[in-house]
Amino acid sequence: MTVHSSEAQVSMQTIPDLFTRTRQRSMDLTAPLNPEDMMLQSMSDASPVKWHLAHTTWFFEEFILRKRLSDYQSPDDRFAFLFNSYYVQAGPRHARDKRGLISRPDIGAVQDYRAYVGDAISALLAQERDDHQQISDLVELGCHHEMQHQELLVTDLLHGLSYNPLMPAYRTPEPTPISPAPDLQFIPQEGGLQKIGYAGNGFSYDCEGPRHKTYVAPYKIANRPVTNGEWIAFIEDGGYGSAPLWLMDGFACAQREDWAHPLYWWKQDDAWWTYTLRGAQPVNLDAPVVHVSYYEAEAFARWAGARLPTEAEHELAFGQSPIEGNFLDDGPLCPTAGPGLWGDVWEWTASPFTPYPGFRPPEGAIGEYNGKFMVNQFVLRGGSCATPKEQMRASYRTFFYPHQRWQMLGLRLAKDA
Amino acid sequence: MTVHSSEAQVSMQTIPDLFTRTRQRSMDLTAPLNPEDMMLQSMSDASPVKWHLAHTTWFFEEFILRKRLSDYQSPDDRFAFLFNSYYVQAGPRHARDKRGLISRPDIGAVQDYRAYVGDAISALLAQERDDHQQISDLVELGCHHEMQHQELLVTDLLHGLSYNPLMPAYRTPEPTPISPAPDLQFIPQEGGLQKIGYAGNGFSYDCEGPRHKTYVAPYKIANRPVTNGEWIAFIEDGGYGSAPLWLMDGFACAQREDWAHPLYWWKQDDAWWTYTLRGAQPVNLDAPVVHVSYYEAEAFARWAGARLPTEAEHELAFGQSPIEGNFLDDGPLCPTAGPGLWGDVWEWTASPFTPYPGFRPPEGAIGEYNGKFMVNQFVLRGGSCATPKEQMRASYRTFFYPHQRWQMLGLRLAKDA
Amino acid sequence: MTVHSSEAQVSMQTIPDLFTRTRQRSMDLTAPLNPEDMMLQSMSDASPVKWHLAHTTWFFEEFILRKRLSDYQSPDDRFAFLFNSYYVQAGPRHARDKRGLISRPDIGAVQDYRAYVGDAISALLAQERDDHQQISDLVELGCHHEMQHQELLVTDLLHGLSYNPLMPAYRTPEPTPISPAPDLQFIPQEGGLQKIGYAGNGFSYDCEGPRHKTYVAPYKIANRPVTNGEWIAFIEDGGYGSAPLWLMDGFACAQREDWAHPLYWWKQDDAWWTYTLRGAQPVNLDAPVVHVSYYEAEAFARWAGARLPTEAEHELAFGQSPIEGNFLDDGPLCPTAGPGLWGDVWEWTASPFTPYPGFRPPEGAIGEYNGKFMVNQFVLRGGSCATPKEQMRASYRTFFYPHQRWQMLGLRLAKDA
Amino acid sequence: MTVHSSEAQVSMQTIPDLFTRTRQRSMDLTAPLNPEDMMLQSMSDASPVKWHLAHTTWFFEEFILRKRLSDYQSPDDRFAFLFNSYYVQAGPRHARDKRGLISRPDIGAVQDYRAYVGDAISALLAQERDDHQQISDLVELGCHHEMQHQELLVTDLLHGLSYNPLMPAYRTPEPTPISPAPDLQFIPQEGGLQKIGYAGNGFSYDCEGPRHKTYVAPYKIANRPVTNGEWIAFIEDGGYGSAPLWLMDGFACAQREDWAHPLYWWKQDDAWWTYTLRGAQPVNLDAPVVHVSYYEAEAFARWAGARLPTEAEHELAFGQSPIEGNFLDDGPLCPTAGPGLWGDVWEWTASPFTPYPGFRPPEGAIGEYNGKFMVNQFVLRGGSCATPKEQMRASYRTFFYPHQRWQMLGLRLAKDA
Repeated sequence: MTVHSSEAQVSMQTIPDLFTRTRQRSMDLTAPLNPEDMMLQSMSDASPVKWHLAHTTWFFEEFILRKRLSDYQSPDDRFAFLFNSYYVQAGPRHARDKRGLISRPDIGAVQDYRAYVGDAISALLAQERDDHQQISDLVELGCHHEMQHQELLVTDLLHGLSYNPLMPAYRTPEPTPISPAPDLQFIPQEGGLQKIGYAGNGFSYDCEGPRHKTYVAPYKIANRPVTNGEWIAFIEDGGYGSAPLWLMDGFACAQREDWAHPLYWWKQDDAWWTYTLRGAQPVNLDAPVVHVSYYEAEAFARWAGARLPTEAEHELAFGQSPIEGNFLDDGPLCPTAGPGLWGDVWEWTASPFTPYPGFRPPEGAIGEYNGKFMVNQFVLRGGSCATPKEQMRASYRTFFYPHQRWQMLGLRLAKDA
Repeated sequence: MTVHSSEAQVSMQTIPDLFTRTRQRSMDLTAPLNPEDMMLQSMSDASPVKWHLAHTTWFFEEFILRKRLSDYQSPDDRFAFLFNSYYVQAGPRHARDKRGLISRPDIGAVQDYRAYVGDAISALLAQERDDHQQISDLVELGCHHEMQHQELLVTDLLHGLSYNPLMPAYRTPEPTPISPAPDLQFIPQEGGLQKIGYAGNGFSYDCEGPRHKTYVAPYKIANRPVTNGEWIAFIEDGGYGSAPLWLMDGFACAQREDWAHPLYWWKQDDAWWTYTLRGAQPVNLDAPVVHVSYYEAEAFARWAGARLPTEAEHELAFGQSPIEGNFLDDGPLCPTAGPGLWGDVWEWTASPFTPYPGFRPPEGAIGEYNGKFMVNQFVLRGGSCATPKEQMRASYRTFFYPHQRWQMLGLRLAKDA
Repeated sequence: MTVHSSEAQVSMQTIPDLFTRTRQRSMDLTAPLNPEDMMLQSMSDASPVKWHLAHTTWFFEEFILRKRLSDYQSPDDRFAFLFNSYYVQAGPRHARDKRGLISRPDIGAVQDYRAYVGDAISALLAQERDDHQQISDLVELGCHHEMQHQELLVTDLLHGLSYNPLMPAYRTPEPTPISPAPDLQFIPQEGGLQKIGYAGNGFSYDCEGPRHKTYVAPYKIANRPVTNGEWIAFIEDGGYGSAPLWLMDGFACAQREDWAHPLYWWKQDDAWWTYTLRGAQPVNLDAPVVHVSYYEAEAFARWAGARLPTEAEHELAFGQSPIEGNFLDDGPLCPTAGPGLWGDVWEWTASPFTPYPGFRPPEGAIGEYNGKFMVNQFVLRGGSCATPKEQMRASYRTFFYPHQRWQMLGLRLAKDA
Repeated sequence: MTVHSSEAQVSMQTIPDLFTRTRQRSMDLTAPLNPEDMMLQSMSDASPVKWHLAHTTWFFEEFILRKRLSDYQSPDDRFAFLFNSYYVQAGPRHARDKRGLISRPDIGAVQDYRAYVGDAISALLAQERDDHQQISDLVELGCHHEMQHQELLVTDLLHGLSYNPLMPAYRTPEPTPISPAPDLQFIPQEGGLQKIGYAGNGFSYDCEGPRHKTYVAPYKIANRPVTNGEWIAFIEDGGYGSAPLWLMDGFACAQREDWAHPLYWWKQDDAWWTYTLRGAQPVNLDAPVVHVSYYEAEAFARWAGARLPTEAEHELAFGQSPIEGNFLDDGPLCPTAGPGLWGDVWEWTASPFTPYPGFRPPEGAIGEYNGKFMVNQFVLRGGSCATPKEQMRASYRTFFYPHQRWQMLGLRLAKDA
């Protein structure tokens, strides 16, 4: 298992190691939580922590244990109904917006389920089998799947906790040193007839390929993401109320939702504050702005006399750069303005999430992983302070609806050459 | 403290005893629950168990400790915002439909809050003070308030658990002996110019008075509530689909909500089943029907060639009868068809909840207790298997919207003489 | 045909005369309108003028011509689907909220339909038949039905036109002389065990009976409706923002709908204006307030230290009084403060619309006329400047939902003795 | 004025001729309508015919007469509020979903408005002025704008009339000869690094440029659109109920809206019928399918083992082809299966509507024409039986949301080479 553009860091990991480490990280993330915290579901886009723990386990059970072990016995066959997310071909499933109403199995029972399935997978990996490679590939996919859910776990949790007027802190709010943001520069890029899409020999998702030719006109791209300080200038210039800066759907959304600043912000005694996983924090002007929608990002770019980059422009610019963000494992769980190029916040691109030319999803339920979402969403590139380091690669395409804000979503500017 | 028509049972109880017993019952009710169960909020009409525990505690704190003890220190002043329900004059409060998103304080912290306030109230009751009687009256009100919430606690819990496909049982589903329903009889009543409203010298709510004259034409009233068996006949006769049987708003509601049977029922292998606090149970034909709305009750009565009684008719018929229902403390938490006249299920009346002539709510926030709900709701009389025995009295007026079903709501028929 | 308490004015009218006069009034009301005006449907509660013209015609066709003439041929059998309102037992019908999308039949075709059915009814009335009395009674009901729709026609039209920023005037806005409002006085009433319900030998609706005994405690009732001047005092005292004055559902509705004054009002250069059928008009302080909901009326009464009268109190107070309002035929289509006791605006009562003791609706579809609405609505008494004079009688019970405002709805205060 | 790929047909037209002809076509289209028909607004996406007549007139007034004639007097300055559609920078405007409530100005007054503005424009075009070319260009834009609204006029009308159970016919339902559909063939295309975007020297919209390079892999494209017969095979194969064929948002939409066939279809005696501007018609198996959404088109393509073409693929394939559709002026107002390549139905492409590289909208309100819609919509290419011939060109990009169906929307299949 190697990871594009960050090989040195993670390439030596074996699949059993990856499995153990990934499963353990999920448990570590829940250490500061009580059972009630793990029940929170604040909107249908978000899921309870307990559900994430169970669903990622079901994924290994459904796609590996049930398929590969003819005598596999689930601890509870009814969990398939409760913890299937959206895989229609894997059978019927519980209503997504009612996940917060599943008080039982309680957290102890879910931990038992995790241990049971974890043991079965580990045993399976240790066996000599004809289908060892396929199993190993599926376990790797399951680990990456679980890493995606680790990011969701903390961002969904943040959203859930944000409804509590007590503003509880998931992590102790120790001071996070924030480096000054470098001056904004636009780096010229040649473009031309180029190839994009995953090119390595490690893990990647189906939607990162096929690698294919695309023509990109010469362009310039910013040396760092947009900062909170720059965003406040947009606010103070009346950006949220100025219709000509916005796409029509975006302005309608902003008006309907009363948007006047990024999600989780408020103003207090003339200063901007934000709710984070470390509790209430003053907004740091040098840190990358986060929790903004595509609509806001797109309007900001127009206000700034720039535009969002396309995903091809982003990938071509950063494909060879080392990642230097704050990762989920040991980071502060909020973006900081490091000298690094990317990895602190996901960066909205101007590109709708569509299939690459020649894209064919795998057969069966696993083919639903990315393909059926290829409408109405936009691609983000990069990675964030809530992303495990193993997931960072330049070809990674994450995607959200243009009104969504609860993930670690920011932006970087681009311009025509 | 005495209770109308059930004096022998509870009249000797002192206020401190009542307080201790009432507070303890709340805790006892939570014994079978895990922290996750106590977070469930399945609709805005229902509240989490944990919220009930905290809100009933806040009631004592807000209306007694803060008002009567100048040096009272709350363990957390922010709880007033979280646990005020609807008392506008007691200050701002958390959104009702977001109570299920309050993971902290966790259940342990709420239990501490209960203990702290409980000790303070007990200490206050033990003091010799000029305002001892006022305090005692308020504690009595607080206990009755908590008893109302005990009923809500179990019915809200039932609603919350009902979304779990695993159908968890709150209480072990041991067999509940159900007596055969007596033959339906209509008992003639004289009516005339009579008085209704609370007439005793014990506790009653403001809306049970003033006692006043009302004219009631001669009528007949059934000897027992409508049974499941009778309700199934209504279903099988096409009652749910026959518009002429229904009020227009009722039929529209039934169609919109796809009602074809009482809440929590389903058909399996040609038999009716129902989800209860004892898990899935076959529908017992002799037991009173429960979890039906006013709309359904009213349509059923028309189908049966009868009508619902008015609240005056109900009170005049049962004012002198002993109560013989299944009460919350030691009952099966579901209605059974005893020989008793009332007390197993709340009985919808034909009377909208309006003020009695001359009604004046008390000054201040406590005046919001009942008065501001006097529109759009209907009165139910009786009491249910989820009602503490101390709350049962013939003048008691509970009230719900005509579409609501999640409480222990049934009906009894009446006819003109 | 006689009308209770206004016999001298209308009692000599024969049924054929009533029919001719009533049908003609509908046509007269449309004289100032173009075909586009007659298409307006601004909400599902309101219907297009053209629909009212056709529906009232269908009523005669459905309940008389089709039932009594075996060889009756409708000009278009499909009109029954289009122009049945809510009579389930008369067959399926078009969606209520889509009436504004019926461009054909156009107004000419509807006028032809009116003429065709009108001629057939007149011919039928002229025949000697065994069922002459039944036909005559049904024609009388049809005329009263059409009169109700005449009131709706002008109030629905007002609502529809109110969405036009051009504020068109249905009638020339000639000055309407407004008499000074008499000083507010509360007239003592004895109450006691009394009878209410229609007592005459003329026409009345089923829901006005049976006449029956009811006990009313002594009370006082105002000598005139609440005026605009008094309502402005309520506004200026912060009445719309003061939750303790309101029923909880009422305050929620007022907040949700941003109510800060009666419907159709706005403030301009420090003066209140209102949109009327005579276009924009300054709010006259002496005129009765109109276009207020039950919720607002109930809150106003509490603010004024009074309450709304019950319908029994209203009927007992005004049962013997002559009517002196501004009627639909020759009036100004807006309330004026005459010396008269009632008839300018409908007056909200504190009484939910429920059946009188012993009420039985007629068999068949005609029984749906009033009975199926007996939930969630409140009774208003009196009559308004948009009510034909023949409809005015003290026992008349009209009813609307507590949030509705688009009819000519006002209020009168009462107090306990 | 020349039109790309159809120059021979329309290039000789002068701007005054184009203006006269375009304005007259709008009036001709309304000839079969009564004033009520012209009021219909059946959803907020659609507008009344009368509004289209007035809005297209306002466009000339706002962007030409008011800007270029310092002494211009509008017949009614309030029309700017009523008839501005979405141009924020042209001032405030009436609520889009309330256009059906504007009964006045009536149709006569709108015709007067059209004549007044038409005369003023014609006079202006006849003047010798320094800004003659700018005026001429704006008049040309206004004509193309009005042609777009002519297409909307008939499709919005169809939608409005479709709510009438009488199924009125806009045009006499004379038989429309339908040619047999040619056999389906996939024509290989070379692709490569190509240029797309408007290349002629006639009229085009801003969003058709800049012409730019794009890389297209080799592909194959169908020789004709999908037919009704093929669509019925999809229906009969359970296509509407098979989740794996659909994008997730598409399937959710289909389920929510109960889609089981194209809009306006129903089954009667085992045969498919459809409501058209010629009234009810049997579905012709050889004609192109129409009134299908992007979601349906995309699912159909997957079912057929193909995919939708991108807009570049479409433009490259058809850029040099003559148009041979049924145009608005003299056509049957429904698609027929001619031998022609395109022009009968709009063809959904796989391309989200995004700006071409280097796209800059014009300054001012006119820049809102296309640019602010560049999110959440998909491009369609071709043209339809409701499109005026002057609008047909291969670079034309129309766009709709993926759930919309009421336009003349069909599809053509493509495949990878």
